[in-house]
Amino acid sequence: MKREGITFYMIFDSDPHDSEYVGDHFMFREYMSGFTGSNGILIVALGSAGLWTDGRYFIQAERELSGSGIDLYRMGERGVPKITEYLKVSLKDGDVLAFDGRLLPAKKGMEYKKIADEAGASLRPDVDAAAVVWTDRPPMPADPLIVIKDDVAGESVPSKLERVRKVMAEHKAGAYVLSHLDDIMWLLNIRGGDVACTPVALSYVYMTADDAHLFIRDSIVTDEAKKHFAAAGVNVHEYDEFMTFMKEEIKTAARDSGAIHADDASETNGGADKTGAHTVMLDTGSVSYAIYAMITGAGVKTADVINPTNEMEAVRNETQMKLTRDVYIRDSAVLTRFLFGVKEDMKNGEALDEYTLALKLDDMRSKITGFMELSFDTISAYGPNAAMMHYEATEESHAELKHEGMYLVDSGGQYMGGTTDVTRTIALGPVTDEMKRDFTLVCVGMLRLADAVFLEGCTGRNLDILARGELWKRGVDYKCGTGHGVGYMLGVHTGPQNIRYKFNSDMNEAVLKAGMTVSDEPGVYIEGGYGIRTENILEVIDMYDNSDGHFYGFKHLTKVPIDLDLIDASYMEPRDIERLNRYHEDVYDSLFPYMETDDERQKLMEACRKL
Amino acid sequence: MKREGITFYMIFDSDPHDSEYVGDHFMFREYMSGFTGSNGILIVALGSAGLWTDGRYFIQAERELSGSGIDLYRMGERGVPKITEYLKVSLKDGDVLAFDGRLLPAKKGMEYKKIADEAGASLRPDVDAAAVVWTDRPPMPADPLIVIKDDVAGESVPSKLERVRKVMAEHKAGAYVLSHLDDIMWLLNIRGGDVACTPVALSYVYMTADDAHLFIRDSIVTDEAKKHFAAAGVNVHEYDEFMTFMKEEIKTAARDSGAIHADDASETNGGADKTGAHTVMLDTGSVSYAIYAMITGAGVKTADVINPTNEMEAVRNETQMKLTRDVYIRDSAVLTRFLFGVKEDMKNGEALDEYTLALKLDDMRSKITGFMELSFDTISAYGPNAAMMHYEATEESHAELKHEGMYLVDSGGQYMGGTTDVTRTIALGPVTDEMKRDFTLVCVGMLRLADAVFLEGCTGRNLDILARGELWKRGVDYKCGTGHGVGYMLGVHTGPQNIRYKFNSDMNEAVLKAGMTVSDEPGVYIEGGYGIRTENILEVIDMYDNSDGHFYGFKHLTKVPIDLDLIDASYMEPRDIERLNRYHEDVYDSLFPYMETDDERQKLMEACRKL
Repeated sequence: MKREGITFYMIFDSDPHDSEYVGDHFMFREYMSGFTGSNGILIVALGSAGLWTDGRYFIQAERELSGSGIDLYRMGERGVPKITEYLKVSLKDGDVLAFDGRLLPAKKGMEYKKIADEAGASLRPDVDAAAVVWTDRPPMPADPLIVIKDDVAGESVPSKLERVRKVMAEHKAGAYVLSHLDDIMWLLNIRGGDVACTPVALSYVYMTADDAHLFIRDSIVTDEAKKHFAAAGVNVHEYDEFMTFMKEEIKTAARDSGAIHADDASETNGGADKTGAHTVMLDTGSVSYAIYAMITGAGVKTADVINPTNEMEAVRNETQMKLTRDVYIRDSAVLTRFLFGVKEDMKNGEALDEYTLALKLDDMRSKITGFMELSFDTISAYGPNAAMMHYEATEESHAELKHEGMYLVDSGGQYMGGTTDVTRTIALGPVTDEMKRDFTLVCVGMLRLADAVFLEGCTGRNLDILARGELWKRGVDYKCGTGHGVGYMLGVHTGPQNIRYKFNSDMNEAVLKAGMTVSDEPGVYIEGGYGIRTENILEVIDMYDNSDGHFYGFKHLTKVPIDLDLIDASYMEPRDIERLNRYHEDVYDSLFPYMETDDERQKLMEACRKL
Repeated sequence: MKREGITFYMIFDSDPHDSEYVGDHFMFREYMSGFTGSNGILIVALGSAGLWTDGRYFIQAERELSGSGIDLYRMGERGVPKITEYLKVSLKDGDVLAFDGRLLPAKKGMEYKKIADEAGASLRPDVDAAAVVWTDRPPMPADPLIVIKDDVAGESVPSKLERVRKVMAEHKAGAYVLSHLDDIMWLLNIRGGDVACTPVALSYVYMTADDAHLFIRDSIVTDEAKKHFAAAGVNVHEYDEFMTFMKEEIKTAARDSGAIHADDASETNGGADKTGAHTVMLDTGSVSYAIYAMITGAGVKTADVINPTNEMEAVRNETQMKLTRDVYIRDSAVLTRFLFGVKEDMKNGEALDEYTLALKLDDMRSKITGFMELSFDTISAYGPNAAMMHYEATEESHAELKHEGMYLVDSGGQYMGGTTDVTRTIALGPVTDEMKRDFTLVCVGMLRLADAVFLEGCTGRNLDILARGELWKRGVDYKCGTGHGVGYMLGVHTGPQNIRYKFNSDMNEAVLKAGMTVSDEPGVYIEGGYGIRTENILEVIDMYDNSDGHFYGFKHLTKVPIDLDLIDASYMEPRDIERLNRYHEDVYDSLFPYMETDDERQKLMEACRKL
């Protein structure tokens, strides 16, 4: 830093694609600080360093940072400055704020630039400290690309490119830069193995009205993939050549646009701008600051548009939905069998613990046809551990299950044909009245939301109270959203749709549409006591279309029994009981063919009995 | 127009205060066009004229404009240009667009100015055609001001001024211009009689950190009011002097601010701007374009802030709520007695019609202690007429009631101590199963919304589905919001709170807070068939405050029985029935003291019987 004249250097926890999960190759913040949490930004100053993280990680960060000389900034605590506030106070005239501009979204970078400008400091957004300091950096993974055939994707690559080009035309843009990995995988009908739990490959797409260019590591592009890209008219380039290629493109665009101005002085805006040949469409909330700064720095115009691929991916076609429904039934059958086993083992007095149970479930799931990988690390939590929403049992630290209270398991898989996510909470023995009440209210909320009918134009904000209403009536709330979108062989948390009662200004509040899938997961979390969550994934379906408008509803994709040992029907209205019975009837019919022994079939019948 | 070189002249349907209802004195659009609807803008061009109105008035406008040479523009119909689109297409280089800038909100004026600018046309926002053309203009009303004592207002004028000054300080504003009449009445604890159904007086307020100025017609300021203003330190000026006064103030502000710049060249922004002495706070959605243009034209800065008085008025103090609760019980008792009478008369075969019934109810209401005027024109509608949301029976045109089907009455009053608004639908004889089903679902929705508990931060958008949910499940919707705020001896439709499932971009989506009142009025409207609406006014109350947050709920202010002859309990859950029984128990206890005869008490008991 001293050699380069840098006074503040920021280290992020991200990759160049704004991914939710990042590979080891990008964990520079962890390497530098020793802090292993998923959320944290490190700022190194000349005489000090600070790490910002949120409430989930305060205790862990304190332990991991101990002795490092790095100050911990507890985000959200009273009196603790936000990163932007810290920068505003710390940056002085003449200071140099540096970071690797490839690792943060353009919007964030603009925010930091503004702060630097106002302080009279200068910004160096092109400093890759990892390249200098991180000598034993883990390599990128090398899993080969998977090509998704049209009978699984339900739509060809040319058709998707065409749809994107329509949006480009609407925004009068001649080019489009896409860096979000889920969106690229969807657009080009491919999947990769570069990020754990999410079948994506590091890549960029640059496309115009005529061409499409994919930047991806050549080492993972199989012959099949090559043929696939050639057939779709997609030009393939090496991942690392993206910026060089872009600089050339942008230089040409800037020059052409200038040339036209010179030729035709009467047109103040240039003919090229009218057709948009020199406007680049991009999403500043997703594309990196480095890309954005390069384009705007060359004087080329941008159109800031939320990636249209985001909603296109979210609205599934019937091919996808058919496969997804089937994947959910098979996934549900395995979880059901697993939970039957846990109950049986507990009854037989066997010793069980959170960690080995997670391993067992993961192993069972891995045998399902089409399994690719887990969609996230399995949460297997007994008793008070279940009150921690993101608990993870490890070999070193986990609890034994006892013949009382509740056990929660939240898990899912990536399959050829769909991504699953499901949570069930079951009784292991005697439970308290409070546990039954809370479990019942959660179940009622989950089923009421799933039973909603709503007019076109509604978002998750309109529906959230259906899941929370009975808890709120008792002064109880859960501190998270009710539901998130679920990808199709992609990130298990996807957008734009979700179910929440409140949206932050940086959240996209998307209108719900038929073909979207969304989780429905109310819960009750009593710190130090117990945790309850019942999570089904729902499919948005068409319901009515008449003079009053177009109405949507939901259908359950998840088909796993809800533990009747935890139900206290006195907290239910007759229609809540009907809903539960109807759900269990559906579960029974769906899972029966997958139960392998008389004992399992007997257990399924018992689990789905009518209340 | 020719003399003045004007090519387009716009005539609005508004007063200088963005009022929902305007007095006859301001009905220039009606005078010019002959069109009597409440919503319509007239644009006069040199060779033609056009009137824009909405779907409620298409038939009426066609009739009233016939032969006038004015073209009807049906707003919302396919292919019909909006006013802004018409102007964009029609305005040519050199044209002059004129209007009376006192009669439209600043925001709208800025929109038209932008269109004129882009077309190369010029804007003349100071042309008062009414002064030239309208020779027999009706005078302004002369009802004297009413002073609201602190034991009715619950807060003194100085205390309110202080609260407003805090907001001014937050926005670094040295002055504040307020022109919205409801807000001025609230702020200064006065009421007037200048607008039908709304006890407001035409007025402006201009205030600084030290002074407060009221502009109002001297002829309506009583001695009591003079003393009241003197005691509160409010300077009173003649209404017509507002603009002259403002011009002087603004000139001084501009000069002072300039002088400081000249004195102290090192401070680029001027000392005065830092304290905000020369920034004027105003709400461009409410204050007129004439005021805004005058201030900004003089080079004085403005801070565009939604009138803080709007929310202050909406959140009632306990004094107001106590009086309001009492007013609602007395108003409810009279409506209940009226409805008992209608049922009895029908049974006795008496001839009834919509118009005389409305007169009768208005007369009964006028005898309630503290009655000032109706809060809106009573809607008295039989059969298919009730399907028209804004139906008004007149002496010339009204329906006779028959011994079958349903009768709907929507009415309310302005009282010393509160404003009421209530709708009931009753059976007059045999009704169909569909009517009972729809009535029951509306009742269920109304009661479920009223029974909601919700976390701090929720708006009407979070709750709307509770009222609509059961209708939506059957593919039925009503084409209006579920609820609006209700004033306190002020406009019966007030903001900022309301209950809707969708908000337009120009709507304020306000967080619900304890002390707000809001209507809860789901309905079913079958064109040519029947109309059902059940409307209670609710009070937002505090419910719980714990580690999960602060929870709110509602309490019914309206206490009028819901006609059990129209209830089909098979459409209700047990808790819906409980809710209805609980409500009727409350109605019985509240109204019993107001029932005057054994017969009435007997009828009340019968109407509130337990299901």
